[in-house]
Amino acid sequence: MTAPSDVFDRPRIRLKPKANARAIRHGAPWVFDNEVVTDRRTRKIPPGALAVLEDDNRAPLGLVAVNPDSRIFCRMLDRDAQAVLDDAWFETRLARALEMRERLFDAPFYRLVHAEADGFPGVIIDRFGDACVIQPNAAWAEAHLDLLTAALLNVTGVTTVLKNASGRTRTLEGLDDVNAVLAGAAPSAPVPVPMNGATYLADLTGGQKTGLFYDQRPNHAFAARLAGQGARVLDVFSHVGGFALSMLAGGAGQALAVDGSAPALALAEQGALASGLAGRFETRQGDAFDVLTALGEEGETFDVVICDPPAFAPSKQALDAGLRAYERIARLAAPLVRPGGYLGLCSCSHAADLSRFREASVRGIGRAGRSAQLIHTGFAGPDHPQLPQLAESGYLKAVFFRL
Amino acid sequence: MTAPSDVFDRPRIRLKPKANARAIRHGAPWVFDNEVVTDRRTRKIPPGALAVLEDDNRAPLGLVAVNPDSRIFCRMLDRDAQAVLDDAWFETRLARALEMRERLFDAPFYRLVHAEADGFPGVIIDRFGDACVIQPNAAWAEAHLDLLTAALLNVTGVTTVLKNASGRTRTLEGLDDVNAVLAGAAPSAPVPVPMNGATYLADLTGGQKTGLFYDQRPNHAFAARLAGQGARVLDVFSHVGGFALSMLAGGAGQALAVDGSAPALALAEQGALASGLAGRFETRQGDAFDVLTALGEEGETFDVVICDPPAFAPSKQALDAGLRAYERIARLAAPLVRPGGYLGLCSCSHAADLSRFREASVRGIGRAGRSAQLIHTGFAGPDHPQLPQLAESGYLKAVFFRL
Repeated sequence: MTAPSDVFDRPRIRLKPKANARAIRHGAPWVFDNEVVTDRRTRKIPPGALAVLEDDNRAPLGLVAVNPDSRIFCRMLDRDAQAVLDDAWFETRLARALEMRERLFDAPFYRLVHAEADGFPGVIIDRFGDACVIQPNAAWAEAHLDLLTAALLNVTGVTTVLKNASGRTRTLEGLDDVNAVLAGAAPSAPVPVPMNGATYLADLTGGQKTGLFYDQRPNHAFAARLAGQGARVLDVFSHVGGFALSMLAGGAGQALAVDGSAPALALAEQGALASGLAGRFETRQGDAFDVLTALGEEGETFDVVICDPPAFAPSKQALDAGLRAYERIARLAAPLVRPGGYLGLCSCSHAADLSRFREASVRGIGRAGRSAQLIHTGFAGPDHPQLPQLAESGYLKAVFFRL
Repeated sequence: MTAPSDVFDRPRIRLKPKANARAIRHGAPWVFDNEVVTDRRTRKIPPGALAVLEDDNRAPLGLVAVNPDSRIFCRMLDRDAQAVLDDAWFETRLARALEMRERLFDAPFYRLVHAEADGFPGVIIDRFGDACVIQPNAAWAEAHLDLLTAALLNVTGVTTVLKNASGRTRTLEGLDDVNAVLAGAAPSAPVPVPMNGATYLADLTGGQKTGLFYDQRPNHAFAARLAGQGARVLDVFSHVGGFALSMLAGGAGQALAVDGSAPALALAEQGALASGLAGRFETRQGDAFDVLTALGEEGETFDVVICDPPAFAPSKQALDAGLRAYERIARLAAPLVRPGGYLGLCSCSHAADLSRFREASVRGIGRAGRSAQLIHTGFAGPDHPQLPQLAESGYLKAVFFRL
């Protein structure tokens, strides 16, 4: 196929001599605005347009998506600077992503595209059976949404494609927050999602507060192993019941889910019903810190306690306060674990790396007067691949202790 | 029960003022020889004797096992300085360790005691159904072997207890390398061990080269998921077939196991036979680097390649050379992975932490001209708990890439 003429008309973006061209050659996915030569011409490139990235000797490094309004000035799309983003380009990458998920999962419920690591910078696609939800969190993806949607329908055979525009990074890219139906019809009710032997209900149109996160799947599975044999378990920051339902499906005798969101707990209860587990499932709505404190004062104990809070340390600035919050969670949760029982603590904070998070957790357990064995460390599941260059920032960590 | 009079006659070991008493109060398990006040009296304490550890103000910190011949001068046994190491002491700790394993595993094949983290400093106990193998790698355990064996028989109901004295750390403790049968009779043939759907054969009396390591169990299980759907897989440094057999049990079509040890490969073949997988299992004996090179020259490719070498960086001194060896493994293995296939690389080196090992692996993959997604990071299974204070040194790491 002959490349369309625009391939040769593409703007060129040149790296400054001090920029790390070697890192980009070795797979670094981003070029920041202070690493490129900018002038009137480059600043006029429309957000999401394609360009050829060159090193300071004008040797091409690849095809990039440009956003002069973002600190991430270029996102590497293809090492071939003459690549064309046509149907085949999208379909090849989606097919490659799909092949791995089909190998790893029995049912079509997974994160299908995890941004840079799957070759789609800034793009998240979650699959829920016959429906996919796209989060196009970069300008280039917004500009190519028709092609992406068509390829997604072709490659996966799904019938519904929704756009979720609630991602906070869209603001950084200068994008709006308007959701849309891109293909098919939005489901009129929460979608049942089978995972780890339970059924969860995901509200695909209600946004983050009531959606579903696939990343915790392997950690749910580990908690389920701990909770067998009729255990009494507590799931704090339960959202739609991720840990609680998997532990019940794994044999727990009784689960209490705590969350601040009434809609999330309502979906958790529907999930328990759909899983045939409603008789062993209770919820308590409220601030997690308050509920942990109250349960401690009530003298309640559990065989397994899991705390999966929102990101307390979303940025480097918030790191110290975040680590104190993680320590506090551990200090309040540890007394609720029976002697010889289990405590699972999670962090989805980029800024708090594994060893800092683990140390804060151990400090909190110690302050509660308990000692611990570390029995398991888990991360996001394999449908959330990472670029090795960005692996240090792997956001999701789960540490499981025996007290 | 009245404490025996010797409880009050126990020698006392005093920390130097500069030693970190706080760390010991918070769970640090060891005191090194340069942290305690030594004199003619303390140097005469027989290796393995019990003593009371005190801070520099003579406040007791706990009951320790002393070995004046070892750099690890004291190992914390009990926070209660007056604890008595009687039947009940051993049985309580073993029962606690057993409770976790019975919760986590369907069959009695696991590491039952993982040293410090299970409250038995320097002691490893692996269970193989009705038999246990004890590695008493500290002088105190050697001195209490009768009590430990009796408690083990009582708590677990096993009928055979073997002593494996091949641990290298025994030399540091001044202990011999003489194996023994402590109870029952040594099995006359390799013992079948069910794990991840396959059957492995473990030679309980033949030492490390032909024994079985339980630590890789969750990583075997992950590899098995990758290898489904008739994949062709390669297991380098296969030992008794850990990864190869689990991948075959998971659905791989054909597995090649490579190892330098003929006895290990013979057990791998017996395991394949016992698993009903012999028709899809091949072995090749030889130096792993040579075989990887040869397979590359033969143009062979596989859907999944796993390399689980011995510790290339067993000490800080060996770190640089070790990392180069890990990089070389990755460079030789990556070309054998088909496009879109999977590469699993393992390290059991204490000195090479996760990020260093991952970086060496990624460098090797890059030098082979391949790029990678990181899809999974695994550690030793939960029957290998760690003290949180020592978690940084978690020795076993497995990183799985898609190329």
